[in-house]
Amino acid sequence: MINVGIAGASGYTGVELVKLISNHPKAKLCAVTSNSYKNKSLTEIFPAMYGFENLICEEFNSTSLSKKVDVMFLALPHKVSMEFVPQLIEKNIKVIDLSADFRFSDVEHYEKAYQTHTSKILLNSAVYGLSELYTDQIAGTSLIGNPGCYPTSILLPMIPLLKEKLINPDGIISDSKSGVSGAGRSLSLATHYSEVNESFTPYKIGNHRHTPEICEQLSLSAGQDVELTFTPHLLPLTRGMLSTIYAKVLEGVQVQEIHSTLQKYYGNRAFVRILDYGKYPAISHVKGTNRCDIGFHLDEKSRQLIVISAIDNLLKGAAGQAVQNMNIMFNIDEETGLNQVQSPL
Amino acid sequence: MINVGIAGASGYTGVELVKLISNHPKAKLCAVTSNSYKNKSLTEIFPAMYGFENLICEEFNSTSLSKKVDVMFLALPHKVSMEFVPQLIEKNIKVIDLSADFRFSDVEHYEKAYQTHTSKILLNSAVYGLSELYTDQIAGTSLIGNPGCYPTSILLPMIPLLKEKLINPDGIISDSKSGVSGAGRSLSLATHYSEVNESFTPYKIGNHRHTPEICEQLSLSAGQDVELTFTPHLLPLTRGMLSTIYAKVLEGVQVQEIHSTLQKYYGNRAFVRILDYGKYPAISHVKGTNRCDIGFHLDEKSRQLIVISAIDNLLKGAAGQAVQNMNIMFNIDEETGLNQVQSPL
Amino acid sequence: MINVGIAGASGYTGVELVKLISNHPKAKLCAVTSNSYKNKSLTEIFPAMYGFENLICEEFNSTSLSKKVDVMFLALPHKVSMEFVPQLIEKNIKVIDLSADFRFSDVEHYEKAYQTHTSKILLNSAVYGLSELYTDQIAGTSLIGNPGCYPTSILLPMIPLLKEKLINPDGIISDSKSGVSGAGRSLSLATHYSEVNESFTPYKIGNHRHTPEICEQLSLSAGQDVELTFTPHLLPLTRGMLSTIYAKVLEGVQVQEIHSTLQKYYGNRAFVRILDYGKYPAISHVKGTNRCDIGFHLDEKSRQLIVISAIDNLLKGAAGQAVQNMNIMFNIDEETGLNQVQSPL
Amino acid sequence: MINVGIAGASGYTGVELVKLISNHPKAKLCAVTSNSYKNKSLTEIFPAMYGFENLICEEFNSTSLSKKVDVMFLALPHKVSMEFVPQLIEKNIKVIDLSADFRFSDVEHYEKAYQTHTSKILLNSAVYGLSELYTDQIAGTSLIGNPGCYPTSILLPMIPLLKEKLINPDGIISDSKSGVSGAGRSLSLATHYSEVNESFTPYKIGNHRHTPEICEQLSLSAGQDVELTFTPHLLPLTRGMLSTIYAKVLEGVQVQEIHSTLQKYYGNRAFVRILDYGKYPAISHVKGTNRCDIGFHLDEKSRQLIVISAIDNLLKGAAGQAVQNMNIMFNIDEETGLNQVQSPL
Repeated sequence: MINVGIAGASGYTGVELVKLISNHPKAKLCAVTSNSYKNKSLTEIFPAMYGFENLICEEFNSTSLSKKVDVMFLALPHKVSMEFVPQLIEKNIKVIDLSADFRFSDVEHYEKAYQTHTSKILLNSAVYGLSELYTDQIAGTSLIGNPGCYPTSILLPMIPLLKEKLINPDGIISDSKSGVSGAGRSLSLATHYSEVNESFTPYKIGNHRHTPEICEQLSLSAGQDVELTFTPHLLPLTRGMLSTIYAKVLEGVQVQEIHSTLQKYYGNRAFVRILDYGKYPAISHVKGTNRCDIGFHLDEKSRQLIVISAIDNLLKGAAGQAVQNMNIMFNIDEETGLNQVQSPL
Repeated sequence: MINVGIAGASGYTGVELVKLISNHPKAKLCAVTSNSYKNKSLTEIFPAMYGFENLICEEFNSTSLSKKVDVMFLALPHKVSMEFVPQLIEKNIKVIDLSADFRFSDVEHYEKAYQTHTSKILLNSAVYGLSELYTDQIAGTSLIGNPGCYPTSILLPMIPLLKEKLINPDGIISDSKSGVSGAGRSLSLATHYSEVNESFTPYKIGNHRHTPEICEQLSLSAGQDVELTFTPHLLPLTRGMLSTIYAKVLEGVQVQEIHSTLQKYYGNRAFVRILDYGKYPAISHVKGTNRCDIGFHLDEKSRQLIVISAIDNLLKGAAGQAVQNMNIMFNIDEETGLNQVQSPL
Repeated sequence: MINVGIAGASGYTGVELVKLISNHPKAKLCAVTSNSYKNKSLTEIFPAMYGFENLICEEFNSTSLSKKVDVMFLALPHKVSMEFVPQLIEKNIKVIDLSADFRFSDVEHYEKAYQTHTSKILLNSAVYGLSELYTDQIAGTSLIGNPGCYPTSILLPMIPLLKEKLINPDGIISDSKSGVSGAGRSLSLATHYSEVNESFTPYKIGNHRHTPEICEQLSLSAGQDVELTFTPHLLPLTRGMLSTIYAKVLEGVQVQEIHSTLQKYYGNRAFVRILDYGKYPAISHVKGTNRCDIGFHLDEKSRQLIVISAIDNLLKGAAGQAVQNMNIMFNIDEETGLNQVQSPL
Repeated sequence: MINVGIAGASGYTGVELVKLISNHPKAKLCAVTSNSYKNKSLTEIFPAMYGFENLICEEFNSTSLSKKVDVMFLALPHKVSMEFVPQLIEKNIKVIDLSADFRFSDVEHYEKAYQTHTSKILLNSAVYGLSELYTDQIAGTSLIGNPGCYPTSILLPMIPLLKEKLINPDGIISDSKSGVSGAGRSLSLATHYSEVNESFTPYKIGNHRHTPEICEQLSLSAGQDVELTFTPHLLPLTRGMLSTIYAKVLEGVQVQEIHSTLQKYYGNRAFVRILDYGKYPAISHVKGTNRCDIGFHLDEKSRQLIVISAIDNLLKGAAGQAVQNMNIMFNIDEETGLNQVQSPL
């Protein structure tokens, strides 16, 4: 049994982790922390969480946590994570950090988008937790920087195409759409029901903090600097994310080559499904699962490629992939605890 | 392993059964039928159903089914069920019928609301599958008439109060609200997106077919004829049902007595939760689960009791309770396959 | 031209008033106030409000307002209204107050539900602005206590039935459902998108502040104390309210009598429509209008009457009725500025 | 007074036209037709349509219509329009056709996307009803091919940029998102509530029939063939459309030039608003209006331009623009009947 702690359990990602770990046959939930709901049980915070009357949110204390857990998931704001992670690593606790603090290879990229990094040595040893693409490194590390939701939806389809030199690394565009849960549980006018409902709008064009995270990974894959045009939008629904990604294929690249390349990378992996040509992903097809559906359309004449990917932002885009990474780190089947069948509704 | 077949797998209740049986540790899905999607795989019908590319919908044929399954779930329209059930029972297949055809004790009640019953002897031997209240009978039968969604939401809280003579059997009112999935997957203007979205309306006042089903059960519990005023409404959401039920308590009945009576019936059962006084059910607290949440408010002076119950109409209101009944029939823990933790979103 | 001011224009009711007055052929919007958005234009606050770049929110100052306006609408929290109203009335400004401060006849009812009333003399002279039922008094007053949304939806159908002695004043129940805009623009977890969406729940059972407002009016109509069982619920939609009201008719009362009584009160009024027997209101039928649709079902045998009424909570339930009252106060056709045709979507 | 007829009044666009004409101060609704609801009143078809109990849907008959109307709006399927238009034109009735039948300059473009055109001479004389850009031609014609919703949302911002040679005509991409009402009132699984709600998906990639319509107009503006990559998506909301359009500006083009060019074309027009740089359109800002909001972001270094436009698909994208065209044809202010203030909810 893997003994698990979850920091930030009162947020939407945190509670999703609670669910997954509770349903996991080889993990045991041993501790939860929450800053805003200290000393409250999870059932008090979320009446939907049956049977957690005795799971009380503690204050974060690495010493007491280290006596209970083998691994900590941190569903905390960036900067807060950076403060807590060194304490845990020092006490030999494995860490899967869902903030941005340990996602970057190049500290300058991080510091430009966020703030001064106070734990640069650990940053160097951290592994970017894109499960299907960094499996071996994940298996060997104690510290995961778990990918953002938008990055996951874009990188899963695009990295293989860049690595295999099928597309032009210049001029890639991702028009991405996220459900409201991605904005978390903190109150804001932008997530007030009557403002979101029956509306749709782009936001943070040109300055969303996921852009440098995505670009760093695309650049590593392409072997050259890749700039991404990234337009996030807010969808009037709770869970789910769909990215429509535009790129130009290199001369002569055909439908079949795109399909077989994606199959080569993901055909034997449980959580990425390459759709038959002519079929497209929908949020309803992945909601509630740890899966990513990928479809595409290629106009061979104009070389315009349209790739569509759909994920559940709280699962493959956050808590689900984090648990998948835990499975890999602890050398158990990556599907464990994540392969429940989900119905369409 | 219990070998299971599901008839009508291409409907919303059918596919929910597919999900539950696929996730069930002691059951195996051996056959699915569909009239509208014959020879198609479940993945073709519902792209959200990963990994069912080889589960092909057959035509209903009791002979070939009887070679594969121990139990059939029938998620079929009423009248169609009545035709198929005798063939299955004759071949020693247990049947859990989700139509109305085997829900009634008194055939006249059925025939008044539906049509001539063509299998009266089996009707007599069928058990009404309200899991918590008819557990023993369910354990001993081969044929379950699985309750309707509205009846489940009303009967679970009200039967104990009637049996224990805490409320006046006259003048009970249920103001019930259902999500759109309750209307199934057949097309109609009433379930056309732009007609339902941002609206709310009552329907079938005074003539909803669930009324006689509810009244028969209430009457059996009260030991006298009970008339119910029942007003169903359509909610602009996909899954979930909430009933707000009004009754008068008998003289001297106090809050504590209501609470302890409900606890007596359900305190040791997994799927019914009696909320602390002052807390109320919400659809988001039960969505995706087989649970029923019950809360109430009592004005002791006026004796007016307000009982609120919430269920997921597709689970405790249909497929979930059906699987719970299967567990009971096969003498395994009723929670098996149904006790996954669900997050609030 | 009627010169109009609107206090609290940055709330949902306030901005709805801005819309109505701007479209009104006989009124001119001369001043708006906002506490939270002082010195901002309405277009800055609400980008949907085209062409209001020069309408700047002032601080509330009765002296400067009194130079510009003939009538003030106050879309302010209770208690704040009570403070401002006397200043305006003293300066001969007519006032339509949308808070609860001037809705009560009996100050004790107010003080029990809210707080000490600091303007009791004005309270005595105020008229309850239920437009169709107090038309003459509205025409003759300078101060309107504009009804709450739930009260409007319940009183419009029930007052005629009580006045004409068709129903038993005891045991009336209103099961009411409101869209989220009724909770206003202030942030709260209860109106956070991901908490409301795909859910439905009752709230404030037994202690909603609209209950004494409704009961006072029902009692006045019945000529005796009337207690109401009132259960408000939150619907996952933005605009609209539907009340399903249960009462017992007196012996011998038949469908036709209910229908003709409602027709007698409303048949010649523009904004209340009595539906043909067998048809029921829906929120989509009244959304965006100042209308109230009323339908009913009567079981003559059991005498159980079910009355359903639907309104747009921001219009007939707030801003629309307020403008209707202004029309009546200024002796112009009550429909003026409110009779635009609305499409179903 | 302009005497107006509306064919296809029982569809969503048709009933929106009924609303607009009914509220129009210089037009009178004299006839409505409907194939599916012949002899029914509009109030019977749409209970939300108050006061149309006597407006009965006729069968389409050009002779009888020609005696009553000066202008016909045809909200009919393509091909049906083509059959009826010549009969009306021959009888000197002006026609505003909302189908695709008269939108094309080049009949080959039409025939490739639809079918053989049976009224080529009239097609030649028809004017494409993009109100702001073809105002003079609209004023002088008797036959308007009213633009599609997607085309309107894309052409309004892009034509000025192409005409003024600010952007590269190659490689333009429109990632467009439409509310469900755009699919009309006909039943389909794709518009069944439980399938659409809480989902989002692209559709008809590479073969949507609006593509040739858009391309023809873009090509005319650019003076060269323009290919468009167009990806339509279905949003889980009723009304509204937002297009996010990607293009490359020519060397040296700066933010200011884009802004001033759009202002030059639209600054003096009522229904197109160019947002301040840094602000973006949202569907909630235009819903219920005939307006188009346009915003953009330009990365001057990479020359990547992102243009966002939002409209109400049923108004500026259909019925609203049609009425605007009627106003222009009859030489009255284009805003007439379309300039009501709308609140944000």
